[in-house]
Amino acid sequence: MARLADGRQLIYYDDTSDGESRPRPADSRQLPTLTVGSELRYDPIVDEWVALAAHRQDRTHLPDVAECPLCPSRDGALTEIPAGDYDVVVFDNRFPSLAADVGELTSAGDDLVPRQPGIGHCEVVCFTSDHNGSFAQLTPQRARTVLEAWADRTIELGLQPGIEQVVPFENRGVEVGVTLQHPHGQIYAFPFASPRTHRMLAAARSHRKRTWRNLFADVLATERKAGTRIVAENEHWTAFVPAAARWPVEVHVYPHRQVPDLPALSDAERDAFCHIYLDVLRRLDRLYDKPLPYIAAWQQAMVNVDRDLSYLRLELFSIRRAEDKLKYLAASESALGVFINDVMPEDVARRLRDLSD
Amino acid sequence: MARLADGRQLIYYDDTSDGESRPRPADSRQLPTLTVGSELRYDPIVDEWVALAAHRQDRTHLPDVAECPLCPSRDGALTEIPAGDYDVVVFDNRFPSLAADVGELTSAGDDLVPRQPGIGHCEVVCFTSDHNGSFAQLTPQRARTVLEAWADRTIELGLQPGIEQVVPFENRGVEVGVTLQHPHGQIYAFPFASPRTHRMLAAARSHRKRTWRNLFADVLATERKAGTRIVAENEHWTAFVPAAARWPVEVHVYPHRQVPDLPALSDAERDAFCHIYLDVLRRLDRLYDKPLPYIAAWQQAMVNVDRDLSYLRLELFSIRRAEDKLKYLAASESALGVFINDVMPEDVARRLRDLSD
Repeated sequence: MARLADGRQLIYYDDTSDGESRPRPADSRQLPTLTVGSELRYDPIVDEWVALAAHRQDRTHLPDVAECPLCPSRDGALTEIPAGDYDVVVFDNRFPSLAADVGELTSAGDDLVPRQPGIGHCEVVCFTSDHNGSFAQLTPQRARTVLEAWADRTIELGLQPGIEQVVPFENRGVEVGVTLQHPHGQIYAFPFASPRTHRMLAAARSHRKRTWRNLFADVLATERKAGTRIVAENEHWTAFVPAAARWPVEVHVYPHRQVPDLPALSDAERDAFCHIYLDVLRRLDRLYDKPLPYIAAWQQAMVNVDRDLSYLRLELFSIRRAEDKLKYLAASESALGVFINDVMPEDVARRLRDLSD
Repeated sequence: MARLADGRQLIYYDDTSDGESRPRPADSRQLPTLTVGSELRYDPIVDEWVALAAHRQDRTHLPDVAECPLCPSRDGALTEIPAGDYDVVVFDNRFPSLAADVGELTSAGDDLVPRQPGIGHCEVVCFTSDHNGSFAQLTPQRARTVLEAWADRTIELGLQPGIEQVVPFENRGVEVGVTLQHPHGQIYAFPFASPRTHRMLAAARSHRKRTWRNLFADVLATERKAGTRIVAENEHWTAFVPAAARWPVEVHVYPHRQVPDLPALSDAERDAFCHIYLDVLRRLDRLYDKPLPYIAAWQQAMVNVDRDLSYLRLELFSIRRAEDKLKYLAASESALGVFINDVMPEDVARRLRDLSD
């Protein structure tokens, strides 16, 4: 573990133990410490918390390749990563939505809209030093290094004060608002259950009460039995389009064994995930013969509660609804929460399944 | 009420009774009847319904002005509106997400993901025959005609079989996915409570149990007392930025009297709404000195249940977070439901309040 010039943490994860012998220079930049003023406000209308992070308005926005802050440092071009090369690197986001030290609240709010400091962690995960690469183009070995970083950070962030949920994710493509094009993901650690997690746990609790079974295991069993929405499978994992998909392209990747989170995966399950995920990602990029914009997020168990109700899985979706068209979240989705999907799940599953390697 | 060539319904609403004397020619187009195949699927993971409407993939997408289907018909250019001019007109969407006659389900689904026919109504509301106009540029008299159309359709659609919720809304701007630029809104009639409505009613029920009071009335009272987030107000309405705003620009417009829906508004309240809403919309367009993309939706009571818990109001929000930047819903919002807002509600409220006429 190293420290950047403004005190932020940085960790190198290497494909092999040879990596440890690489030079790991200190960060020689002059970097002012940024003040993070995040706060959480409770929205009484829908019983959910919202994060306010006004300091992020000036974050770096689509810089030129020469100024990419996620490339390795070179002479005359010092970046967020002091080393001249790296395999995978994880560090604290310079413009975090949530942070461990967010200062005092300016106001406690009122009874209806209480406020809390925006405590949490926002980390950046660089998948490769190759600016023009992508997750789909990683080797299985490198994908495994990324998975090890996710699992390691899940453990470490789960031990931090106040953290209730750890979510590794990747936003890919300018179409979903990515501001840095270098292949990278992020890890958010939240001080609460996300609204979607909250709803999933409520549904899982209700299902168990009625059936004595795990909801997600039943969903997986139903999909494997139906077969019509399966995209890929191997001994340990199945990737399928959910029957009630919200997005024109949506793939969920479930392990066959119920585990709460990434650290609980066996060695064989970890290897098998890398193979199925790379297979799925490459199919997605071939769907329109160009890089598919997507959002991929791990749904892990909460740190402290309801771990028995949970079931680790990766959920991936794209807003691309046709070669030259995107899905927009307009009033039905954004104001009402009613998703209208123009693509039948069985159709997109068949198309993805039928793509040859 | 008239019928279009393929049997869809069309209704003219006029600013004054003089309008009734205008020629209302029949639709002389040859228009094949489109098959609507919508179905609803239950998503067991989050206990919500999703609409699948694959027939919408080929809907009209950003046509030239000369081919705008919402302009009045002219010689040689027959549109969706047979008349040569109109004030406000409401008609069934040719590419609806939900429809009264959607045919049989191809499959009933299974226990985990039951399916239902996508029964409902999707109507288009043209605010003006002026292709280059906008709601903000309407006269108060015309805005009142639109409001009368919304109220009238709320009553009529609420009487249709299976309808539980009626939602008039406007998507404005290509940035939110608008495919027709002619000033128009839509009205959706759903056979269920939308997920957001469901959560709001649950929160309102919980609040009433605890306080014996109406949640939304308390929210309004709190905002009027604080004052810091108020954008505009008059005798019957207050427009404010909610304390836990999710969007960089968000304004809610509440009547001072608790009413369940638009038909329940008094004559004076209807007039007063037109004035405050036009004032708010004009401020929004001045915020960046260019038309603001926005989504505006009426939150009305359900048709049959929980009407006493409800409180009519209009919710408007924009994804524009700076003059040249949009907010994207990436993993935090789309995969987890955690909204991260880069703009403080008090700041945007002050900016909107301070804009001179």
